[in-house]
Amino acid sequence: MREIFRQELEQVGDDLVLMARHVQTAMEHASIALATGDLRLAERVIDDDRTVDQLEQSLDEQCVTLLARQQPVATDLRVVVSALRLSATLERMGDLARHVAQVARGRYPELAVPESFTDVFRRIADASNTVARDVVRLLEGRDLALAATIEADDDQLDALHRETFRLMLAPRENARPLDAQQVVDVTLLGRYYERFGDHGVSVARRIAYLVTGEAYGTTIPDGVDAQISRGA
Amino acid sequence: MREIFRQELEQVGDDLVLMARHVQTAMEHASIALATGDLRLAERVIDDDRTVDQLEQSLDEQCVTLLARQQPVATDLRVVVSALRLSATLERMGDLARHVAQVARGRYPELAVPESFTDVFRRIADASNTVARDVVRLLEGRDLALAATIEADDDQLDALHRETFRLMLAPRENARPLDAQQVVDVTLLGRYYERFGDHGVSVARRIAYLVTGEAYGTTIPDGVDAQISRGA
Repeated sequence: MREIFRQELEQVGDDLVLMARHVQTAMEHASIALATGDLRLAERVIDDDRTVDQLEQSLDEQCVTLLARQQPVATDLRVVVSALRLSATLERMGDLARHVAQVARGRYPELAVPESFTDVFRRIADASNTVARDVVRLLEGRDLALAATIEADDDQLDALHRETFRLMLAPRENARPLDAQQVVDVTLLGRYYERFGDHGVSVARRIAYLVTGEAYGTTIPDGVDAQISRGA
Repeated sequence: MREIFRQELEQVGDDLVLMARHVQTAMEHASIALATGDLRLAERVIDDDRTVDQLEQSLDEQCVTLLARQQPVATDLRVVVSALRLSATLERMGDLARHVAQVARGRYPELAVPESFTDVFRRIADASNTVARDVVRLLEGRDLALAATIEADDDQLDALHRETFRLMLAPRENARPLDAQQVVDVTLLGRYYERFGDHGVSVARRIAYLVTGEAYGTTIPDGVDAQISRGA
């Protein structure tokens, strides 16, 4: 019975890694599509999000079956409940990659990112790729040092998010003024990446909790909402 | 044993209703604070979000304890797993109410909503209040007719969200042009309310699934993202 439980739990872990890898690829490709106006790549990201959704459903079924048949307690129970939550978070990260791709597709053949924002969105793409890569690694190996790294990556993403607001609200003198569509796009894109980072942190905290039994952060972080809405 | 299980499960149900009521009040007050520039009300919403967060944690602990001690199977297990997910969704709805309040606070003593958007945001507030109220009722009574009503409320919210984009991107002739801060605020506010409605639908679908055993919608809906990003 225990052996079966271990095997099933390992399968759940493998599927979480698989899901995280899909999410990583999705966000990487979405950022490339956004930067280059690659319509086909954007559409591939949008279509492939279904795979992540299916993986979530499959994982959820596995977890519920595991709970019903194996009736785990203590740490084992905590692991299964966490897996349920991790799959929901990864599914949401996949959605956010899809949203970025949808903005890229929506502006085709133009680029969605205004010229004066090319650099900040390149850095945002780098930071979100780092978050996604570290989430995969954390799920692969439960190396707790990565949890702290993800928090730092997310701080970086938050700082870059604030930078997009600064550029919109106090543009450089020689920057071409943005039209309303561009402000909308930059605002939404900034929000999507920021939430992507927040969810990465949520994964990190959940794994840290699993490994150490101690919560060092209890709710999904909210990034810079508080700051920006205080008046950027 | 069964009697204790029933009692504990009832407690979980009661706490979900309590949480949903907090969320309803939070969004109602956030919308009033937004419409009237009421700083103290905005701050109360922001502070009170902690209560929702605490309720979520308490609910999660109850559910995990229930799983460990009572080892439910079949429908009972599904109910407990659903409660875990419902509490996460309600917590997120509370966050979104807080975000609306944060935008209201950030623009104080000005109003965050530009004059030409007063009417659409009044209708958005009405629709989100309806969603929140129906979520409370659905959790109270499991009346499946309400699940369909919530879907319709959310369609209404999505239509109003599209209307905010129309007003930003093709303003009426006599409307005063928006500055970048206003476009940012309207974009984020629209997104917060839209997500609030999406989460309401997610609650509706989960309860419907619990009652009927049939999924009629499997992932959290994405509102109008696809449409708006196709090019508003």
